[in-house]
Amino acid sequence: MEEKKIIVETQSYKIKEPITLSSGEVLDNIEIAYETYGKLNKNKDNAILVLHALTGDAHSAFYNSNTDKQPGWWNDLIGSGKAFDTDEYFVISTNILGGCRGTTGPSSINPKTEKEYGLDFPVITVKDMVIGQKKLIDHFGIKKLIVAGGSLGGMQAMEWSILYPDLVSHCILIATAGKQSAQNVALHYVGRKAIMSDPNWNNGNYYNSFDKPTYGLSVARMIGHITYLCNQSFDRKFARRFQNSEKPHFTFAPEFEVESYLEHQGNKFINRFDANSYLYITKAVDYFDLEYEYGSFEKAFSKTKAKFLVISFTSDWLYSPEQSKNIVKALKKVKKKVKYYNIKSNLGHDAFLLEHEKQTKIIKKFLK
Amino acid sequence: MEEKKIIVETQSYKIKEPITLSSGEVLDNIEIAYETYGKLNKNKDNAILVLHALTGDAHSAFYNSNTDKQPGWWNDLIGSGKAFDTDEYFVISTNILGGCRGTTGPSSINPKTEKEYGLDFPVITVKDMVIGQKKLIDHFGIKKLIVAGGSLGGMQAMEWSILYPDLVSHCILIATAGKQSAQNVALHYVGRKAIMSDPNWNNGNYYNSFDKPTYGLSVARMIGHITYLCNQSFDRKFARRFQNSEKPHFTFAPEFEVESYLEHQGNKFINRFDANSYLYITKAVDYFDLEYEYGSFEKAFSKTKAKFLVISFTSDWLYSPEQSKNIVKALKKVKKKVKYYNIKSNLGHDAFLLEHEKQTKIIKKFLK
Repeated sequence: MEEKKIIVETQSYKIKEPITLSSGEVLDNIEIAYETYGKLNKNKDNAILVLHALTGDAHSAFYNSNTDKQPGWWNDLIGSGKAFDTDEYFVISTNILGGCRGTTGPSSINPKTEKEYGLDFPVITVKDMVIGQKKLIDHFGIKKLIVAGGSLGGMQAMEWSILYPDLVSHCILIATAGKQSAQNVALHYVGRKAIMSDPNWNNGNYYNSFDKPTYGLSVARMIGHITYLCNQSFDRKFARRFQNSEKPHFTFAPEFEVESYLEHQGNKFINRFDANSYLYITKAVDYFDLEYEYGSFEKAFSKTKAKFLVISFTSDWLYSPEQSKNIVKALKKVKKKVKYYNIKSNLGHDAFLLEHEKQTKIIKKFLK
Repeated sequence: MEEKKIIVETQSYKIKEPITLSSGEVLDNIEIAYETYGKLNKNKDNAILVLHALTGDAHSAFYNSNTDKQPGWWNDLIGSGKAFDTDEYFVISTNILGGCRGTTGPSSINPKTEKEYGLDFPVITVKDMVIGQKKLIDHFGIKKLIVAGGSLGGMQAMEWSILYPDLVSHCILIATAGKQSAQNVALHYVGRKAIMSDPNWNNGNYYNSFDKPTYGLSVARMIGHITYLCNQSFDRKFARRFQNSEKPHFTFAPEFEVESYLEHQGNKFINRFDANSYLYITKAVDYFDLEYEYGSFEKAFSKTKAKFLVISFTSDWLYSPEQSKNIVKALKKVKKKVKYYNIKSNLGHDAFLLEHEKQTKIIKKFLK
């Protein structure tokens, strides 16, 4: 039995004024791609802002067209009766600044040159992303806001709670960290290195070329996918099975199932993502460090007024339970209300997109 | 006070007959690069074969010249009074088949074409490496052999104990696994992908070109280095410190210490290693699977006659303690003598090259 597809349209909001970024540079003519589900009430206090991870987009739920095979990336959690219940809440999701899915980023046209920005796009931070989103929230006249996100989405949610304490009533942080670890900086660096070593990257100027830095981007994506899983999920999904074969073929072509999986993920990605956006967004994540920005986690959270929900997953080694616990510890130290759940899962970091039943229960209870 | 440098010379042994490889292909004119330390006794029963990991070489101890700044890769464990005591033992180390440090590999001259093999070199396995080494051991007329190695070196040691049970009296397996995990296959695959995506790789034909696939090889090496450390060692070594700066510079050039470290490791590696060798050796490791080869770990070990010593390190996620425990379990099931130590360490996989004090005690006791 097929569910009737609810069709939503991605919309665009043009920010009226320039934004001064963390770097000191000023960015003008910013457009924010967004979708909304449910209805904003009269008091304008039933809004949830859903914040996406590294390569997500504004399309977090339902379908953009009848022919779409997949719904939005967090469809399991957003909808009628779901964790983020569209019967009750007005759910908003945006594409982040620096992205390539409708919001202004390095592949957008620079009004000064009338060409794509490429590397002329300024290096941005998670804070800059949040400041951009705030303009849209103000445009709706929203008075009270719930923020929720996993991974980079959680980093944005933290910044939201810190920058706009009077607005944010609830802050849901999933599989995230208060600062990007050195190991994760290293992993991102190698991904960027792969892109920037691809001769087709051409110092970021490839938009009008037939040849795109697809090899580099694909390698970066493969590295990413390895970090989204965990040893157990690799064993369960693939073990050492060969693809379409009983025995080794003694060449370098993909032959293990896990190799074909990586190839598939790499190939899918190059068709939907901009290599420069990958550079800018990973760099923003690498800069994320509440300790550096505010002096300490405690100082960062000291003026927040939200209730916090922190969720981690036992097998997530990219944003480990320990990193979530450090957030919880700091929140408790400065006497903030916080609930913490470390969900038992063998799905690695990907769990935040997959373990929807457990998360639904926890989030529903938290928002009650 | 500087220790007087003991100078050793890497030697070469030419195998007299062709070897039939696991793939069924036949390889002729194989040269094995090797070094020896200490003296073979009259009974020829005091030999230790030391087996290197992915990118090692025959130069495992002492110095090749007075100007060498670094001794061989396992100098902490090999020498007078050390774990592998050269006063007592005749220590041999070889460069593996497929390597680029003296032993025949893809960068060697193919006698049929009088050009470098490149991809005409046959895909090899760990078993093939061991069969090659056996020719050298026979050349010395050795009657009893201790084998020892970490990581891929441990895989070779296992094959030694299985293929030549009457020869191998002691088998020392450090930070290794009885089969390469799917996660590790994935990591190697991405490294190979980076090399093979480098246009200078040119399908393996780059030996006579000015431009080598250095970018791809460097990315592969960086991925490797991330897996040799662990979250704790990243935090301890680098944390989030900037290199020569107090604050972010908002560009994509390396700025965190960890980024400079990766660059440095990548650059060092491209000067000493052949990209094709990296393909062949990682592929051999990916094929390593005693279950596939012998039916089960138990069947694999059933005819061995060696005493086994298995060592793992608590923070090693590349070849985890669990994988070592699976080897130990199988050995016990088939009633073999085995000692197992899980050394507490926060150095990740690299621990096998660094935690020499603890290993020295354990190995000395085992060999007594």
